[in-house]
Amino acid sequence: MSERLVVIGADATGMSAASQARRMAGPQELEIVVFERGRSTSYSACGIPYWVGGLVAERDSLIARTAEEHRARDIDLRLRTEVLEIDVAGRRVRSRDLESGAESWTGYDQLVIATGARPIRPALPGIDAAGVHGVQTLDDGQALIDTLVATEGKRAVVVGAGYIGVEMAEALINRGYRVTVLDRGAEPMSTLDPDMGALVRTAMCGLGIEIVSDAEVTEIRIDDSGRVRAVATAEGEYPADVVVLGIGVRPETALARAAGLPLGEYGGLLTDLSMRVHGHEKIWAGGDCVEVLDLVSGRLRHIALGTHANKHGQIIGANIGGGYATFPGVVGTAVSKVCDLEVARTGLREKDAHAAGLQYVTVTIESTSRAGYYPEPAPMTVKMLAERRTGRLLGTQIVGREGAGKRVDIAAVALTARMTVEQMTALDLGYAPPFSPVWDPVLVAARKAMTEVRRRG
Amino acid sequence: MSERLVVIGADATGMSAASQARRMAGPQELEIVVFERGRSTSYSACGIPYWVGGLVAERDSLIARTAEEHRARDIDLRLRTEVLEIDVAGRRVRSRDLESGAESWTGYDQLVIATGARPIRPALPGIDAAGVHGVQTLDDGQALIDTLVATEGKRAVVVGAGYIGVEMAEALINRGYRVTVLDRGAEPMSTLDPDMGALVRTAMCGLGIEIVSDAEVTEIRIDDSGRVRAVATAEGEYPADVVVLGIGVRPETALARAAGLPLGEYGGLLTDLSMRVHGHEKIWAGGDCVEVLDLVSGRLRHIALGTHANKHGQIIGANIGGGYATFPGVVGTAVSKVCDLEVARTGLREKDAHAAGLQYVTVTIESTSRAGYYPEPAPMTVKMLAERRTGRLLGTQIVGREGAGKRVDIAAVALTARMTVEQMTALDLGYAPPFSPVWDPVLVAARKAMTEVRRRG
Repeated sequence: MSERLVVIGADATGMSAASQARRMAGPQELEIVVFERGRSTSYSACGIPYWVGGLVAERDSLIARTAEEHRARDIDLRLRTEVLEIDVAGRRVRSRDLESGAESWTGYDQLVIATGARPIRPALPGIDAAGVHGVQTLDDGQALIDTLVATEGKRAVVVGAGYIGVEMAEALINRGYRVTVLDRGAEPMSTLDPDMGALVRTAMCGLGIEIVSDAEVTEIRIDDSGRVRAVATAEGEYPADVVVLGIGVRPETALARAAGLPLGEYGGLLTDLSMRVHGHEKIWAGGDCVEVLDLVSGRLRHIALGTHANKHGQIIGANIGGGYATFPGVVGTAVSKVCDLEVARTGLREKDAHAAGLQYVTVTIESTSRAGYYPEPAPMTVKMLAERRTGRLLGTQIVGREGAGKRVDIAAVALTARMTVEQMTALDLGYAPPFSPVWDPVLVAARKAMTEVRRRG
Repeated sequence: MSERLVVIGADATGMSAASQARRMAGPQELEIVVFERGRSTSYSACGIPYWVGGLVAERDSLIARTAEEHRARDIDLRLRTEVLEIDVAGRRVRSRDLESGAESWTGYDQLVIATGARPIRPALPGIDAAGVHGVQTLDDGQALIDTLVATEGKRAVVVGAGYIGVEMAEALINRGYRVTVLDRGAEPMSTLDPDMGALVRTAMCGLGIEIVSDAEVTEIRIDDSGRVRAVATAEGEYPADVVVLGIGVRPETALARAAGLPLGEYGGLLTDLSMRVHGHEKIWAGGDCVEVLDLVSGRLRHIALGTHANKHGQIIGANIGGGYATFPGVVGTAVSKVCDLEVARTGLREKDAHAAGLQYVTVTIESTSRAGYYPEPAPMTVKMLAERRTGRLLGTQIVGREGAGKRVDIAAVALTARMTVEQMTALDLGYAPPFSPVWDPVLVAARKAMTEVRRRG
């Protein structure tokens, strides 16, 4: 007898789960229905800044697999159809066709909740003015591009200096805008420690981006036509022809909350390692709407990142399809760039280590991406945290130029393997003058951290 | 009472050992004498191809620390002084000043053998002709540059298609030469499996480099003035205005052999993990003259690479200075490039796995260094070997363009941690469109290898 799988949300997690389940179970065994309130499937939200910035020409390039391709694989994909309610006891969901307004109930045997995250949109005067944009969906991206094309002035204000904020700053620079970034924090990139964030600030200023720190936005000021004209903070006013909000995201779990499903401290769904929602045998969740285990601190976190969302979808699909897979957790790796500046992190910041009750030492070193004598050795700064006494690696942050960012993967694997910094000093990493100094910068940091662990005792 | 440390060889291992020992023990405690038959200390042999190719302007750039700098740290460094004999029973070495010819004995309490490797120089007719060059020492590099400057023709033959051969091919291309590489093997880069080597051959041909495979050189043919004019193989003759030998190296252990010290299958000194020569409490060895433990196969190997040599020196110096450090072994990581082609490997090739008695599966995938929609996604091919049944990662080879090579570090750390390919699929690697597809190429390979391990059983 055929079962029915219902999936809520047709982006990375939802469609990976649907596709993987379909690979493992044919249409005779498993009916798959996917509800998506938007117009697109399987798109790369991470790519939106590069589309807005003009590096990616076509909106469709950001779509990994179209609705038609999914439907050709016997997935009943219903776009512009919003799920309004999950009836857990009745094993059914209520949805509305956003075109016709018609509502209906659909029963499920297995349910995947892949509702993603929603951008934080502060309740400020003027926040809904023309010219103020988020960048969560392809429609958001298109709306922003339309504004940029139609706008005469070239002054942009970006609110928020996290990944999305700095990537949008680059996009707007590439579009010829004068960019001001307003940030609540003391330094940009609060996913780094402030001392490393300060390096990002210096580099961004060097790129001509104005960064205003400790800036609490109080109002979006509009002109007579209702368009944005400036962003106001307690300290001043920043003229703006366009405003981009890059403040961060929260798990989109209103449906799950209303259904009484278990949520964590950050508002994300709680699952076991197989991505099954706690206490619900047939309900699965993954991607930006769940909390994940941080393998370094042992605590739950909320991390909205396409790479985790894709993994979750694969794992859910395999488990629904009769296979077996688990998601062990994350170490918190992220990499980004602003023009030629590369910024990466993995593991714990100082405040994370402190919050987790871990005592640590910290070291910072300067090195280069290539041998010093090779042309254009790109400078980089590596900060490393190691646990006091045990010397276990706790975190690594890297700020530098070309070749700096992806070096964070070395530390990410070492964190996963729970290596000590002393063990890391013996790592057999790729060396040749165009690729690395004879001691890779990550090893230089590990050596210094090892010495500091011993000294501190 | 002061002890005396004698070091034979003033390059990476010797001077790292001397410097580290000096950091830990002052001149009152430890006298340090270093013998070096050449004219230079602490130079980067790996940098010679880039100096020859014109990317590095100054010979001195390749010297990490000069003789004067070492002497300023109370290291008695004797250049152009060759050690002729080690008297193990008498704890002394006999040396000759190569300028004056004077010989003398120097006693030691601790001895470090850091004699490096010597290039293989086949006993062919004409091998000593003018215009035939090795590239081991700075003097070799200078001699080659002098030849290139003085030579009118622009035809170069490189003998050997390993790392040195392909790097020298790039250097000569950069100098405007027409380059032919003669290689004994079926495919270049025998440090890769032949299927991956074939990709290197195709790419090198695309760069305008002629590669002749299965070519056994029989003679260097000379003109009336005694200069090289061609290289002959059984199949033909290749005109050459200059010839570069890049055939490989062997451990330089003639002194050690004569002294009765233990050597392994490849002619390298045998040491314990603290880099102490087996059976000799006060004799240490490291770098290109020793054999090292391959952590993947459990066998000894000879690997001439600056990064190991530097680590060995640090470890020896720390142990002599009263500290404690060990070198756990290698996983066999190497990275190189020919123009914009990047080539990397770590762990075992198929034939290594076979020789080690390991049954394995192998997969090969194509991916890109960036998200597919991001500008200029550089293609790369990743081959992965995993142990049958256990799924333990055994090796990874990568051939691709910008951003491909250093990804091998992910696999190098995973090998060190003895991860399975299934564990690798969950690795939390840095992701953003300019840096990686949402599934990093290494993860794509790991996923495919996991599937293959299960299928094969």
